[in-house]
Amino acid sequence: MNAVNEHEVLGALLDPESIAIVGASNNEKSIGGRPIKFLKDYGYQGKIYPINPRYDIVQGITCYRGIKELPGAVDLLIVAVRADLVLGALQEAQDKGIKSALVFSSGFGEIGGDGQEMQKQLVQLAADNNMPVCGPNCQGYINHWGNITASFTGALVRGNFKKGPAALIAQSGAVGGMLYAIAQETGIGMSYMIVGGNEAVVSTGDYLHYVLNDEKTRVVATYMEGLKDVSRLKECARLSMEKEKPIVAMKVGRSAAGSKAAASHTGSIAGEDKLVDAFFRQMGIIRVDNADEMFHCLKIFSNPKRMQGDRVGILSISGGAGVIMADACEKYGLQLAKLQDDTEEKLRSLLPPFGSPRNPVDITAQVLTEVDKFYDSARCVVDDPGTDAAVIFIGLLEHLKDQLIPAIKKLEESTSKPIIIIWMAGNDEIRKEFQATTIPFFEEPTQAIYALGQLNKFRRYTAAYKKAAARETPDTGKSAETAAMLDQLNIEGKILDEINSKKLLHAYNIPVTSDILAKNQAEAAAAAKQIGFPIVMKIVSPDIAHKSDVGGVILGINSEREVIQAFQQIMQNVKEQKPEAHIDGIMISEMLPPGIEMLVGLKHDDTFGPVIVVGMGGIYVEILKDASTRILPINRQDAYEMLEELKSYALLKGARGQKERHIEALVDVLLNVSKMGMALQDRIAELDINPLLVFEKGSGVKAADGLVTLR
Amino acid sequence: MNAVNEHEVLGALLDPESIAIVGASNNEKSIGGRPIKFLKDYGYQGKIYPINPRYDIVQGITCYRGIKELPGAVDLLIVAVRADLVLGALQEAQDKGIKSALVFSSGFGEIGGDGQEMQKQLVQLAADNNMPVCGPNCQGYINHWGNITASFTGALVRGNFKKGPAALIAQSGAVGGMLYAIAQETGIGMSYMIVGGNEAVVSTGDYLHYVLNDEKTRVVATYMEGLKDVSRLKECARLSMEKEKPIVAMKVGRSAAGSKAAASHTGSIAGEDKLVDAFFRQMGIIRVDNADEMFHCLKIFSNPKRMQGDRVGILSISGGAGVIMADACEKYGLQLAKLQDDTEEKLRSLLPPFGSPRNPVDITAQVLTEVDKFYDSARCVVDDPGTDAAVIFIGLLEHLKDQLIPAIKKLEESTSKPIIIIWMAGNDEIRKEFQATTIPFFEEPTQAIYALGQLNKFRRYTAAYKKAAARETPDTGKSAETAAMLDQLNIEGKILDEINSKKLLHAYNIPVTSDILAKNQAEAAAAAKQIGFPIVMKIVSPDIAHKSDVGGVILGINSEREVIQAFQQIMQNVKEQKPEAHIDGIMISEMLPPGIEMLVGLKHDDTFGPVIVVGMGGIYVEILKDASTRILPINRQDAYEMLEELKSYALLKGARGQKERHIEALVDVLLNVSKMGMALQDRIAELDINPLLVFEKGSGVKAADGLVTLR
Repeated sequence: MNAVNEHEVLGALLDPESIAIVGASNNEKSIGGRPIKFLKDYGYQGKIYPINPRYDIVQGITCYRGIKELPGAVDLLIVAVRADLVLGALQEAQDKGIKSALVFSSGFGEIGGDGQEMQKQLVQLAADNNMPVCGPNCQGYINHWGNITASFTGALVRGNFKKGPAALIAQSGAVGGMLYAIAQETGIGMSYMIVGGNEAVVSTGDYLHYVLNDEKTRVVATYMEGLKDVSRLKECARLSMEKEKPIVAMKVGRSAAGSKAAASHTGSIAGEDKLVDAFFRQMGIIRVDNADEMFHCLKIFSNPKRMQGDRVGILSISGGAGVIMADACEKYGLQLAKLQDDTEEKLRSLLPPFGSPRNPVDITAQVLTEVDKFYDSARCVVDDPGTDAAVIFIGLLEHLKDQLIPAIKKLEESTSKPIIIIWMAGNDEIRKEFQATTIPFFEEPTQAIYALGQLNKFRRYTAAYKKAAARETPDTGKSAETAAMLDQLNIEGKILDEINSKKLLHAYNIPVTSDILAKNQAEAAAAAKQIGFPIVMKIVSPDIAHKSDVGGVILGINSEREVIQAFQQIMQNVKEQKPEAHIDGIMISEMLPPGIEMLVGLKHDDTFGPVIVVGMGGIYVEILKDASTRILPINRQDAYEMLEELKSYALLKGARGQKERHIEALVDVLLNVSKMGMALQDRIAELDINPLLVFEKGSGVKAADGLVTLR
Repeated sequence: MNAVNEHEVLGALLDPESIAIVGASNNEKSIGGRPIKFLKDYGYQGKIYPINPRYDIVQGITCYRGIKELPGAVDLLIVAVRADLVLGALQEAQDKGIKSALVFSSGFGEIGGDGQEMQKQLVQLAADNNMPVCGPNCQGYINHWGNITASFTGALVRGNFKKGPAALIAQSGAVGGMLYAIAQETGIGMSYMIVGGNEAVVSTGDYLHYVLNDEKTRVVATYMEGLKDVSRLKECARLSMEKEKPIVAMKVGRSAAGSKAAASHTGSIAGEDKLVDAFFRQMGIIRVDNADEMFHCLKIFSNPKRMQGDRVGILSISGGAGVIMADACEKYGLQLAKLQDDTEEKLRSLLPPFGSPRNPVDITAQVLTEVDKFYDSARCVVDDPGTDAAVIFIGLLEHLKDQLIPAIKKLEESTSKPIIIIWMAGNDEIRKEFQATTIPFFEEPTQAIYALGQLNKFRRYTAAYKKAAARETPDTGKSAETAAMLDQLNIEGKILDEINSKKLLHAYNIPVTSDILAKNQAEAAAAAKQIGFPIVMKIVSPDIAHKSDVGGVILGINSEREVIQAFQQIMQNVKEQKPEAHIDGIMISEMLPPGIEMLVGLKHDDTFGPVIVVGMGGIYVEILKDASTRILPINRQDAYEMLEELKSYALLKGARGQKERHIEALVDVLLNVSKMGMALQDRIAELDINPLLVFEKGSGVKAADGLVTLR
């Protein structure tokens, strides 16, 4: 799909002016009958052309014997026939000049074997003719603002049809239909619902991109079982940031068991979950873990108001609920606003003595007996310059709804700050009244604060995106020079030994220790003298990854005599522990002053490409799992954020009387590793700099060891 | 409250055979009118005595002019009069022989000042007469099975009244009423709802204890803003374990902001939240964070069925939902059951080819067209010996409800394993049909798995409790000897120096290094010879807590000459960095072989008493926060669990080629510290053993430093 003509090409599929249905049926409950019934019921304004050789009229509309017999080209052909008839229908559609197709039929990739073969042919046919095809094995879509119900989903039988700013794109038909049904019942107004099934031609990324460009759409939720096209998703994410329309993603298969189940369900590979997390965070995509979280997000993002900061003012009729919300603010990264003194003063004059004018403001149920006081108190919180959003908590009190709801609506209209309503244990009438507005309405306090937390998170994402876009773009250029260098190295097997690994690091301006490879004791003694005592001696072998584990490292050698002893000792240790290893020699290196040991690594991931990791070095990275990960490339801001995420960051900043470390130099290493990872992404499977010693501020860093594994 | 006569004393309050209401009103909406209306509406079978000097009849019932005028003693007096009239009424009730009272009236402790004073008098009056009083400033309670609505909560106006096995006890009136209303609307059948307000006399712990002993009650949910009576809660927790009736606690004030808000709301101190977590976990109390989680728990625990293990079988009409549930199982500590081969074989014969017989079993929507196949597939999962519970996921398909619901009920009745139903986007009829059963019914898959996770957690809690009860009880004996020793020590200020701290540790069989205190260089040299090189030298001063930070420690001293140099160096460092410190001398200690540095500590907490902490030693405990905490006393099993919780436990077990450490010896230290903490709980404010060196297996542990702070 070329993004330039997306509007034209996908427009024919998703906003067609005419629709033909092959396999059209008079049975309003059948797959070939439902779309016609729905299109009529929901007021589709375009032309409908049923196709079925057995009828002249279907559901009251003139029916055609075949695709060829249609009076002219149409925008969209819905295909509701047996799998083995699909390819023929598509070919005829192509011959007729039909612009797009939607294939409900099952029996393709999802059943493997012959089905897979047919799907390949379908893809080829679509590619040859640049025809967008939704499906096969899909439930189709609903374009609400166009009243286009090109779907047979049971959710449409239920009769809800609320138009609005939220789009939903789902890979799985069953889950998609259920999410859609709940969204509609929760009062979430929608622009699009698309269930693309096998996504053989048009993918989730394509749909996302299209609806992000749709003017009626303000937020897109997506349900994904696999990440099929990462680069397309990146384009969508950029569009999301630029248009400030959030993507809310429910990507399942987090756990090992879930990932296995996903693979057996759709055949898609889940991808390592922490990388999925990293990817979403870097892209500014909001990840949700379940349907509830998705709906909380859709509710709050459907409202056009956005926060300008992270400070929340809370007004509650219950002190206890105030406590619950204060807890939730901390959990979801929000600040309790500090109200100005005169705001508190004014509140004090409005509230009974057992209320509290401090945020969370406890107005008590008593104040509700005078609606003016309720309104004035809420006004105080909303108008205070210290608040970026206001949360109003009401409980029970359904008998006051006719006074309270108009007051809340008036408040909402009079401010640009988001106003969130929580009415706990209200009733159905209250629910319906709020669902008819764009005011985010919740019935449990922590849900509301969760949603507000996501609104704030999206603010941070877009701000970071704009800052990064304005300042610098990551260096992603290919480096022919180092690629050529790799070819020239004398590489046996897939592992670069330490000497060669360090050469590569050096080529990317990553500081490495001075080393000389010695083949025998005499060379070792000479090398030690050249480098200067104290020195370190380490075995060099392509077969030994963890040198310490086999007694292949001796530190703090101070004299020629010790060099000779150490040489013998290391050779003996290795011979005992790894008798089969090929030995290149022993490396003589400068002994470094003490520094904080960090690990910096690269890894090639099949889904995301090159990935960078930084964490505490030594055995701690494995045991304490204090590491942070990003998909490459990264920029300077990303690098700092990676470090700030580490618990061990406090060590770098200088904990308990220790001096601050040279963090800037560590950041430079991360950026250079990013550059190297991008340039050599086709060659490097893994890079492990461990330890990278970080010295005191001003004294830089140095890689004491490095190991590159090639792909 | 004495537990022995609890049934009699609290029974008069919570299960009265006759109720008088002072402040009785004909206004059915007033606080004095509502309880009478509710008692009549909800079918209370006992006698009702309205009291009001102004009426002869109230709401159709004979009214009395005053308490004195009552025809005889009653079980319960409800007090709905102005605050300043309450004490008089209670005194009259006492004179009349009325057994208990319930005070709705506000204006006591919650407003401070005079109110606080009146509350004190109320407490005194109740204590003098052993009269249980609910409130003041409370909403009262509902005893569902007794049809006793001794409350004015607005939730009763709504008209739901479903009897069942769940009790709810809430401190805050507003939140309590809302939780109750939602519970009833969610179809949770209830035994008791109690909102005790200021809890001046009868506390949450007392109510908990009473309802745990109630035969109709199977689970108790409690909403708490502060922990008022920890020892009473401990008794409740033991009762919960013994009766296998879970306590589900929503304790708010987790965050700093929330805790502050709670303190200003109820005046109760929240307690350090991680200690609250530790306390609940040790006591087998299930902590929930919000109202949703509370209801999920109540739903699942209301069903009498319990899991025998942690293995879940899942049957889903949607592969995608199967993935979501598999993810949730991992998140909530459940295993996906491995089905037996013949189960899978049988499922394969029942399912269409695009279904999956592997757990999570994907039966697809197609199988539902034949309800027998649905039933048979579910049977396979339920009957498989590898499953401890079965989860059935259905979506939409409301048109199949008349076939599916009877099949599910039949299945439920035919097994002792818990069956959980998730019907996503069903409809109100489906909801109501399931709410009328005890089958746990959910509408979102992760909620259901969360609830099942809590069921499994409670199984683990009760199993651990029984195991511990059967095996050993923690040593909690007072030790007069060491207490006397403390008195004899030459203590200046509140800090015991290292020498005295180690004496105390030694008295509790905690291995410490050999140390000699030297006042001058000559004594130091002699001590070093006596202990044997290499040695360590450390400053001893009650004013210096962190010796390394002031240059007060020198390691690895190998000769008499170095001893003299080190003595001078340390004295100079300390003089420069802490000129005002009182110096006792320098301690000469044995230099220990390398070991893993752990920290073991004690702390006195105002809410929970003595608390023990273990974690990695050195600066890591502060930075990496890898520590685990328990309220004392602990037993051997607790000690092992504390270590297993640590990320650094892998280090103790021997990571990356390192040898395993002497874990048993470390556990002994924890138990001895627990013993010491209990025995000296009135004396010790804090103990810090850091580092405790843990040597290789068989070589024990040794405390290299210790610091005791007295209370």
